[in-house]
Amino acid sequence: MSKPGQRVLAELRKLIASGELAAGERIVEIPTAERLQVSRMPVRIALRTLEQEGLLCKTGRGYRVRAVTREDIAGAVEVRGVLEGLAARQAAERGLSAEARATLEECLAEGDRLFANGQVLLEELERYQRMNMRFHRTIIEASGNPAIAVALARNDHLPFASVSALAVDRDNLEQEFRRFNFAHMQHHAVVDALVNGQGARAEAIMREHANATLRYADYFDPARQGVTVLHGDVAAD
Amino acid sequence: MSKPGQRVLAELRKLIASGELAAGERIVEIPTAERLQVSRMPVRIALRTLEQEGLLCKTGRGYRVRAVTREDIAGAVEVRGVLEGLAARQAAERGLSAEARATLEECLAEGDRLFANGQVLLEELERYQRMNMRFHRTIIEASGNPAIAVALARNDHLPFASVSALAVDRDNLEQEFRRFNFAHMQHHAVVDALVNGQGARAEAIMREHANATLRYADYFDPARQGVTVLHGDVAAD
Amino acid sequence: MSKPGQRVLAELRKLIASGELAAGERIVEIPTAERLQVSRMPVRIALRTLEQEGLLCKTGRGYRVRAVTREDIAGAVEVRGVLEGLAARQAAERGLSAEARATLEECLAEGDRLFANGQVLLEELERYQRMNMRFHRTIIEASGNPAIAVALARNDHLPFASVSALAVDRDNLEQEFRRFNFAHMQHHAVVDALVNGQGARAEAIMREHANATLRYADYFDPARQGVTVLHGDVAAD
Amino acid sequence: MSKPGQRVLAELRKLIASGELAAGERIVEIPTAERLQVSRMPVRIALRTLEQEGLLCKTGRGYRVRAVTREDIAGAVEVRGVLEGLAARQAAERGLSAEARATLEECLAEGDRLFANGQVLLEELERYQRMNMRFHRTIIEASGNPAIAVALARNDHLPFASVSALAVDRDNLEQEFRRFNFAHMQHHAVVDALVNGQGARAEAIMREHANATLRYADYFDPARQGVTVLHGDVAAD
Repeated sequence: MSKPGQRVLAELRKLIASGELAAGERIVEIPTAERLQVSRMPVRIALRTLEQEGLLCKTGRGYRVRAVTREDIAGAVEVRGVLEGLAARQAAERGLSAEARATLEECLAEGDRLFANGQVLLEELERYQRMNMRFHRTIIEASGNPAIAVALARNDHLPFASVSALAVDRDNLEQEFRRFNFAHMQHHAVVDALVNGQGARAEAIMREHANATLRYADYFDPARQGVTVLHGDVAAD
Repeated sequence: MSKPGQRVLAELRKLIASGELAAGERIVEIPTAERLQVSRMPVRIALRTLEQEGLLCKTGRGYRVRAVTREDIAGAVEVRGVLEGLAARQAAERGLSAEARATLEECLAEGDRLFANGQVLLEELERYQRMNMRFHRTIIEASGNPAIAVALARNDHLPFASVSALAVDRDNLEQEFRRFNFAHMQHHAVVDALVNGQGARAEAIMREHANATLRYADYFDPARQGVTVLHGDVAAD
Repeated sequence: MSKPGQRVLAELRKLIASGELAAGERIVEIPTAERLQVSRMPVRIALRTLEQEGLLCKTGRGYRVRAVTREDIAGAVEVRGVLEGLAARQAAERGLSAEARATLEECLAEGDRLFANGQVLLEELERYQRMNMRFHRTIIEASGNPAIAVALARNDHLPFASVSALAVDRDNLEQEFRRFNFAHMQHHAVVDALVNGQGARAEAIMREHANATLRYADYFDPARQGVTVLHGDVAAD
Repeated sequence: MSKPGQRVLAELRKLIASGELAAGERIVEIPTAERLQVSRMPVRIALRTLEQEGLLCKTGRGYRVRAVTREDIAGAVEVRGVLEGLAARQAAERGLSAEARATLEECLAEGDRLFANGQVLLEELERYQRMNMRFHRTIIEASGNPAIAVALARNDHLPFASVSALAVDRDNLEQEFRRFNFAHMQHHAVVDALVNGQGARAEAIMREHANATLRYADYFDPARQGVTVLHGDVAAD
């Protein structure tokens, strides 16, 4: 896909994931092209792609944002969990390369620095999120099993299913600190398992860790307000 | 996709999976259309689809059959294992519907009849294979998680990764009896787990069961000859 | 414990496991000593040991055989499953010694010979049972974790919970062939996993395999008659 | 066992677990009785019990503290992990009673209060430890499988293997806050799984959680000093 095409696709995914384009809303080519200041062609291609991914559905002349239920998301998070769990298991069984190990340990150290003073700021969570995506990508590559990335690519397009979308409650950063510290300690535990060749353990931690993006947020306040979605660079994923 | 398009796609997949179209072989539109007695358009679309699936790669003017390594297949079988395992776990946790349970028990009874006299014939294995595909499809649907079927669809196109392709050693049906009996007893065990709400157990059996299509065949004779591939109706999958 | 003491203990365990000494039945020192043709002292010690194990309960002057429910047995089989599963996982993660691997492969070959002609005789199942106990013992030792054997020792005293007691339906050896072939194919699969360093897979197979002694027997005929219990040399366990 | 006998046993276990009675040290009846201000009989019985548990070994006239290696402890922690994991799985599959659920939620709320202000004090960790033991005991009972507690009882006597011994680095309570918050978030996750009937998930979390007592402490500082062991009421366990 062309550069502008990829940018348009990433923009539209964010607008849908954030709810700015709400379920049921109509999306038409020309106004969208004007809004994003691009020509019609990349918009047309992006809309067709989003339809294939299940985020849009075709109506008479245009598209509508498909309603994504909580069950849809939960199901896709389970799928991500077993696939990333498989990656961690296979990475542990093959043994980590020195390079992969160094990358993972850098990610741990970066997270430890972020959490060292007992609190986090919203802008720090953006750094956390970039580190987080690097961490996950490293494990998927370390599996040596290309079929995992293929299956994940299909699954990741659902909003919140991907590790690249991270919901943050900006009104309650004390609790978010505890939640992100939990997720980061899971990173520590999975690296411990990978380094020591404990495949079953690495798999179990990674499967559970898939719940960190969304589900853990409910432990404190199921009806929370003020949620911001941090996106990694989706197009580069 | 059009009816003829689907038929062409299914035919080409079989020719590749069976090795009649070997790795490296060139595939060109016109002779392929003549061979399958269809027009060029459905062939063109099918070839593009097979390229996206990773079975063909583009060369100057046409396509070549991509070499699929043993590692590629093993990786895709692992992916199938964790996805079908997830389906079985979620089916057990939700509880089976009366209809799903009846279908699974019919499949068990049909297999028991096939194996009751202590041997199998090649044509019986074809019946087994249809029953087998019905069994797997029922569990995936019973999960209530549509993201599983989506992820599997992408994975199943690799030869031997799918439950729809079953390798049989026609020169050694005594040993094949023991192997298929093993696979069928795993079906018994997974239904036992599903009916009794044992999700972890159902998942573990189903994951291991993914090895039945190919890996178990090596336990008797790693360098075997005379292997036939039984295909379910791939297009209807 | 003295030699006669061990023999008395093994004899009494068999009589309880086989039901010859039924739940609720009184057991008194002197007649038991006469029946087994030993002096009273080894009987007294054995009865006290069986009380600690939960097979007998103390009454006024003697003991009674404690009723063991199906749930008690199922619970102990689950415990055995997770402990043997852990042993297999740790054995795979450490890597098998050449000696352990050779022993396991001998066990596989012996089972393959027994099943090669498509049927089994009762006396062959006794050989199977000795091989089976050797197989399990080898994996527990290969774990390098002595805490597993300690925890198993306590659990194994419940009738049918131990791998050393194997229920066989002598009136239906065709079906028993299919059941034992299933158990033996699980042995093949677990060795495949151990040899290839697949810890999670080895654990999952071994956990499920704990159901082979009793639960699988129900798949054919829940209300079966004519069950014989084959015992390995319990005292030597 | 008599009240003084239980007290003596608990005292001696603590002295061994804390290292005050070091590996190799001789323990003789009379001085021990004087030190603990009891008569010789409860000391004699306690020493024999500790020998059976593997904490002491018999020498000529008395006992010595057996050397417990890091591998011994790691092995026993693995055993505890699979047994508590099994308990959580079976509790999820049966469904929690209203009473068990209320107890677990009380434990979560108590921990949340302890961690709410972003730090912990040593005396608060003692409260945490009592809550922690109650939490674990509730899950083991909720399994409905008495064989689990029997197998755990044997395993728990090794120092640090039991949930009743908790190592705390009193010089570094900021890091300990992060570690205990991790353990407590695992409690949240396991209750979430139990309440929603997710047996495989509950098992996986509980297995990993066994590492919280000791292993996680190494993530920050492998060669740490100043470790205090908090004991629950061991005798009442």
